[in-house]
Amino acid sequence: MSENQAKFVEYIQKNQEQLVDTLAEAVAIPSVSGDASYRPEVVKMGKWLQEQFNEVGAETSMHELGKQTLDGKEIDLPPVLVGNYGTDANKKTVLVYGHYDVQPALKSDGWDTEPFKLVHDKASGRLYGRGSTDDKGPILGWLYVLKAHKALGLELPVNLKFCFEGMEESGSVGLDAFVEKEAGNLFKGVDAVCISDNYWLGTEKPCVTHGLRGIAYFKLEIKGPARDLHSGVFGGMVHEPMTDLIQIMSSLVTPEGKILIPGISEQVRALTDEERKVYDVMDFSISDVDNATGSSTTISNAKPEVLMARMRNPSLSLHGIEGAFAEPGSKTVIPAKVVGKFSIRLVPDMQPQKVVEAVEKYVDEQFKKLKSKNTMKLMPDHPGKPWLADPNHWNYEAAFSATEKIYGVRPDLTREGGSIPITLTFADALQKNVLLLPMGRSDDGAHSTNEKLDLSNYIKGTELLGTYLYEVAAAAA
Amino acid sequence: MSENQAKFVEYIQKNQEQLVDTLAEAVAIPSVSGDASYRPEVVKMGKWLQEQFNEVGAETSMHELGKQTLDGKEIDLPPVLVGNYGTDANKKTVLVYGHYDVQPALKSDGWDTEPFKLVHDKASGRLYGRGSTDDKGPILGWLYVLKAHKALGLELPVNLKFCFEGMEESGSVGLDAFVEKEAGNLFKGVDAVCISDNYWLGTEKPCVTHGLRGIAYFKLEIKGPARDLHSGVFGGMVHEPMTDLIQIMSSLVTPEGKILIPGISEQVRALTDEERKVYDVMDFSISDVDNATGSSTTISNAKPEVLMARMRNPSLSLHGIEGAFAEPGSKTVIPAKVVGKFSIRLVPDMQPQKVVEAVEKYVDEQFKKLKSKNTMKLMPDHPGKPWLADPNHWNYEAAFSATEKIYGVRPDLTREGGSIPITLTFADALQKNVLLLPMGRSDDGAHSTNEKLDLSNYIKGTELLGTYLYEVAAAAA
Repeated sequence: MSENQAKFVEYIQKNQEQLVDTLAEAVAIPSVSGDASYRPEVVKMGKWLQEQFNEVGAETSMHELGKQTLDGKEIDLPPVLVGNYGTDANKKTVLVYGHYDVQPALKSDGWDTEPFKLVHDKASGRLYGRGSTDDKGPILGWLYVLKAHKALGLELPVNLKFCFEGMEESGSVGLDAFVEKEAGNLFKGVDAVCISDNYWLGTEKPCVTHGLRGIAYFKLEIKGPARDLHSGVFGGMVHEPMTDLIQIMSSLVTPEGKILIPGISEQVRALTDEERKVYDVMDFSISDVDNATGSSTTISNAKPEVLMARMRNPSLSLHGIEGAFAEPGSKTVIPAKVVGKFSIRLVPDMQPQKVVEAVEKYVDEQFKKLKSKNTMKLMPDHPGKPWLADPNHWNYEAAFSATEKIYGVRPDLTREGGSIPITLTFADALQKNVLLLPMGRSDDGAHSTNEKLDLSNYIKGTELLGTYLYEVAAAAA
Repeated sequence: MSENQAKFVEYIQKNQEQLVDTLAEAVAIPSVSGDASYRPEVVKMGKWLQEQFNEVGAETSMHELGKQTLDGKEIDLPPVLVGNYGTDANKKTVLVYGHYDVQPALKSDGWDTEPFKLVHDKASGRLYGRGSTDDKGPILGWLYVLKAHKALGLELPVNLKFCFEGMEESGSVGLDAFVEKEAGNLFKGVDAVCISDNYWLGTEKPCVTHGLRGIAYFKLEIKGPARDLHSGVFGGMVHEPMTDLIQIMSSLVTPEGKILIPGISEQVRALTDEERKVYDVMDFSISDVDNATGSSTTISNAKPEVLMARMRNPSLSLHGIEGAFAEPGSKTVIPAKVVGKFSIRLVPDMQPQKVVEAVEKYVDEQFKKLKSKNTMKLMPDHPGKPWLADPNHWNYEAAFSATEKIYGVRPDLTREGGSIPITLTFADALQKNVLLLPMGRSDDGAHSTNEKLDLSNYIKGTELLGTYLYEVAAAAA
């Protein structure tokens, strides 16, 4: 570790209380993006952040993204905060992304403490509060990287750009277009991207993440009668849309998770021996899944199988049915029109369009087999591609090396089962390597009650982010 | 037709306007039983009816049934109006049932006219208004039978008892217990029961009805995770309750309506050649079903098959799923607990308990086949038996004969697909023959917008009810 690196790490360790105080200030602003009445708080949060970054010497600018209709009102989208720190042509330029909005939270949801008051439980070493881990902690990590360097009079080893949005928890409305528009302008000269908005695979060992699954979502409508019918009067006389829909939905996937639609699994990239070995040694156990689900329902009892199911295999989930009887109690209705919802998670090398076509062909065949007089219509949402970055890139080497220096262990290289669409947007729009470098743990409860960030993850995570910049600077590009 | 019968019929024909006026008075009282705020109107309706029947010389009494909780309020159940007209030991005693409450109705539901203002459309000969056909028209038919005899100074050929409730549209709460309790008291001495609360099979030809299907309703719960999961993170790793449930639901019935559960269809009474012929000649066409459903979705194109499907065969309908995603839009949830709802309509000689056992055994087998780590629980509602009366009884002969005299045609002897539980209660509690003698037509829209009763059905239907009493008196018991 260089002298400057060591001084930076020491500064963070010595100023833990100040980091916690700043996080408390951030958590106290309830920047809930999904509720129109909280929109002023989201804007306030963005402005607060801008002031913080201005104070440490960044050049910042706020960018309006237009309007949206929420809860029946037309309101301004929260602005995007963009910043620069350093413009040395001899240094690499790293773009970091984060979001300053949060999920809704009410104490009455089941929180043990006030969600918008940061509570430091010294016994457990945990910092409880909405946004602590998702994603205010990581953003303040970047802030303190700059603050430490300013306080110590040290030069930052790279040029830093940042892009912090206020709509991530509500679909990142407007951000894709903004990033695409600014790729050759605000984001010009970026060499690599780092996003800290995900979590360790477990609770013990850090990881860096280079893949996300994509998604193809489908709505399958079956309709027959012009209105709902009484099953006493009509049961047995007519083709019932629910019966047809359930037949088709049952033909999509087995209880073991095997997708029955031809042409889907065939698109999945073959597993090499080398990749297979990665899952054997990854820090993870079945009990991590069991703890997360509160059950013992993994399809496989073998760790590598379970990991591959999340990280590198497609999956098909049946989400529900619109138009059928969904309330408690007993109702004897024959629903006239029902819409089944299901989605397929996509992995390399699946092509979203080929997946949609395979589903269309299969569902059409299945429906024809029923010989029903009802009508069927399949409506695919616009699908999202999977994302997979090259982990042999210097961006990843820097993350590995920084993690080893801070945590004393080589991180697991993981892929995640979900989707963070902006990751793919940055990769496609900037054509640069993108890295996910998480700060928190898998049990942080990002969208749940009692969201927390362990103090050690906050402090060491901040050290990690700064150290990563040193390793980027040192890496052979 | 006897002289008295003829005088009665003539009276009804001459007093059509008065009958319409009285129906308008009844329709104007919005006696909606399913809405606590309308409860005073239901009570008002009961009292209005009591006055009407008192005026024509009946002895009436009101009976409280206790309390219920509705819309969060504890309120009195509407009272049952019980009456007697005549106690001549040498005459037969007929008990008639009806209900004075109605379904909810708002003009904004799509009515062309105010629902609680009777509108006589003279061009079509229709009387529009909530409750016109269901079931205020038939009750006033009985009223005018008595009114005519009083006006004409004629003796009624039978003793008449009546039982009019105010909760039929809301589950007849309390009535079963009341009928059972009063079987040997208020309802002592009853020789036969007549209920006018159903409809012709079509729109042209009268019918009398001697059968109703029963029902066995099931809730099938599958649960696994302790909470809903994100399909990105967990899709493919865990057994999903929805996938298991859909598999089981798909194994219950084919799109052609064939029940796949062993031991169900085997219980159905064999079809005789004689019974088969009945369906060939019944006044009914596929287009009646198509008009009612607003579609062309009958499983069979053969009239007898469609009629048998409603009247004498069991059916299995899938109603919906509780706990899954049922809203519009796209949500990527793996629901933690889902409850599938389905029911089987029961016909002679199916035994509800044997049906429940067959379903329990089959569902258990199907679930075991899935080898899922989720858990399954089948919860049957208390089942209702099918009802089938002996149409060779003098009660039916009287109805046939009366219909021939009024309509000039022998009515179809029909069975209905739905259930009217009170029918079975009267049959079981009194151990007497029960007859369903409808006044309205199949297109009256009893629970829909623009409910109507054709004037001709109201007038001839009233003539029919009175004539039926004469035929009862004349029948060899």
